[in-house]
Amino acid sequence: MRPRFSPETYIQAILAGNKVMLSRAITLIESRLNSDNELAQAVIEGCLPHSGGAFRIGITGVPGAGKSTFIDTFGTMLANKGHKIAVLAIDPSSNVSGGSILGDKTRMQNLSIHANAFIRPSPSGGNLGGVARKTRETLLLCEAAGYDVIMVETVGVGQSEITVRGMTDFFLLLMLPNAGDELQGIKKGIMEQADALLINKADGVFLPKARSAKVLYSQALRLFPPNESGWNPPVMLCSALAETGIVEIWETLTRFREHTLANGSWDKQRERQALNWMMENAMLRIQQAFLENPFVQTEIKRLKEEVQNQQISPMKAADVLVNLWGSRR
Amino acid sequence: MRPRFSPETYIQAILAGNKVMLSRAITLIESRLNSDNELAQAVIEGCLPHSGGAFRIGITGVPGAGKSTFIDTFGTMLANKGHKIAVLAIDPSSNVSGGSILGDKTRMQNLSIHANAFIRPSPSGGNLGGVARKTRETLLLCEAAGYDVIMVETVGVGQSEITVRGMTDFFLLLMLPNAGDELQGIKKGIMEQADALLINKADGVFLPKARSAKVLYSQALRLFPPNESGWNPPVMLCSALAETGIVEIWETLTRFREHTLANGSWDKQRERQALNWMMENAMLRIQQAFLENPFVQTEIKRLKEEVQNQQISPMKAADVLVNLWGSRR
Repeated sequence: MRPRFSPETYIQAILAGNKVMLSRAITLIESRLNSDNELAQAVIEGCLPHSGGAFRIGITGVPGAGKSTFIDTFGTMLANKGHKIAVLAIDPSSNVSGGSILGDKTRMQNLSIHANAFIRPSPSGGNLGGVARKTRETLLLCEAAGYDVIMVETVGVGQSEITVRGMTDFFLLLMLPNAGDELQGIKKGIMEQADALLINKADGVFLPKARSAKVLYSQALRLFPPNESGWNPPVMLCSALAETGIVEIWETLTRFREHTLANGSWDKQRERQALNWMMENAMLRIQQAFLENPFVQTEIKRLKEEVQNQQISPMKAADVLVNLWGSRR
Repeated sequence: MRPRFSPETYIQAILAGNKVMLSRAITLIESRLNSDNELAQAVIEGCLPHSGGAFRIGITGVPGAGKSTFIDTFGTMLANKGHKIAVLAIDPSSNVSGGSILGDKTRMQNLSIHANAFIRPSPSGGNLGGVARKTRETLLLCEAAGYDVIMVETVGVGQSEITVRGMTDFFLLLMLPNAGDELQGIKKGIMEQADALLINKADGVFLPKARSAKVLYSQALRLFPPNESGWNPPVMLCSALAETGIVEIWETLTRFREHTLANGSWDKQRERQALNWMMENAMLRIQQAFLENPFVQTEIKRLKEEVQNQQISPMKAADVLVNLWGSRR
């Protein structure tokens, strides 16, 4: 049994940048105990007025794209410049695949031991909605603790990258040099959500391939409709291993922030995200209450079979479900 | 006051291919009267065992891409070959913009007077969920009436094309010859949803542009992940006006059907769509009940302001909403 403190104790320690207490507060967020959750909510509410100050960067890419190495190199460069770096992860599959993408801190050898860095593995267990909520709340605490660059990593093969897109200011898609091949595993539509494409491992024998991939992706991006912010997503090359192209990424991020702060789209996106977050959260919980209702569950199973056998129309089946729920709550 | 008949009368007439009674049944579907809806549901349930026989084709593209002219030319060619063609539309904006995309039947001069064709404008009014439901139900009735090719048209600028994608077997994206420019207005992610890209108006002085657009789009499509069905979306050229490339489109559609029937993905997609439709419908109605609750509406307005002013966290605001709804229904 770990010690529990008053909300004020957590809040003051977090605002003072105390990593141990920050970690403990995040553990409260991730706890499944109702008493912990109440405490966690009080801490979050107290930190909220001090949050919002970070550049929130979403990073996605297929397994093997080199996300950990990139975050290690990029984050260390920024930490050495005096930035305070927090790294979070959304990986709802981690409890299935048997290991969080960030579970092994040794994959970020330099960053993980840096005084200016805070690395937190993905919360394990729960559905994507739950994991997303925990990550969002953790992000707020990190901001209150003074972290000014927060990277949220996700493996880009499921629903989670849309979730990460919805909680970050900039969405970076990491790619491999062999254009086309590596996209086979990535989710449809992700490329159009990216604020920048970064072709990693652009070194040695892969450099020519990386360069032609850049041309191809640049052409493809020009076919997409422009972002609301008027930002044209660039395609960039880097090598996290050879440490080339890393400084340029921070320059691009800085340019993005200046551009979107100037035209108001930075604040607009933040506001939209907060409102979406509220409504998504409410809808999600209502849907969950519906789907977890035992009467509804039994009925869904039966109705799915009837729909498949064309014994009932999908609309009628929906009617049955909604009426059942109205009467059996 | 139009006459009302028994469900059996409607059903028998629809199965016999009676266009007048088919139209009247669709009017029942679109009616806002509860008594009409009950009658409509009985008709739909009766037609359901006779539905499912059509090739359902979704067609989208920005305004000006020539959707009406294309459907007119393509549909007439098929109608002349003995196919029975139904054309529906999803256009939730029609009551705002002052005219349905299909309101003016003169835009399909040849098809609209063909004995083998049935054209129904978009149901006006209601939200997208409601319009989608009406269109889906209309589609079933048209199938029961013997229409074997059903085209569902949508203007590709909003949410509606995802809805159309979810009720059709094949999703055709109509484009203009000047690659890039015309995509400015189209929704993100649509290109990746398409089963084929069709560059229309590929005639006269536009032909060279159309050809280079084809090369560009083909390259871009190769960067996308493959469809589950193993179908590679082709990029084709046509001119609805000059009537070139039209026969080839039907050949492609036929090839798609053979391919997906053979590997089972045709049936799988149909089954998935029916189950999604059931669950979407149920979720949509639960969400609507929530959002239309007067207490919830008042509270949402207040909470949005508090979230914007950072007086309350989005999560806490969602809690308030969900608890309120639980107590005030």
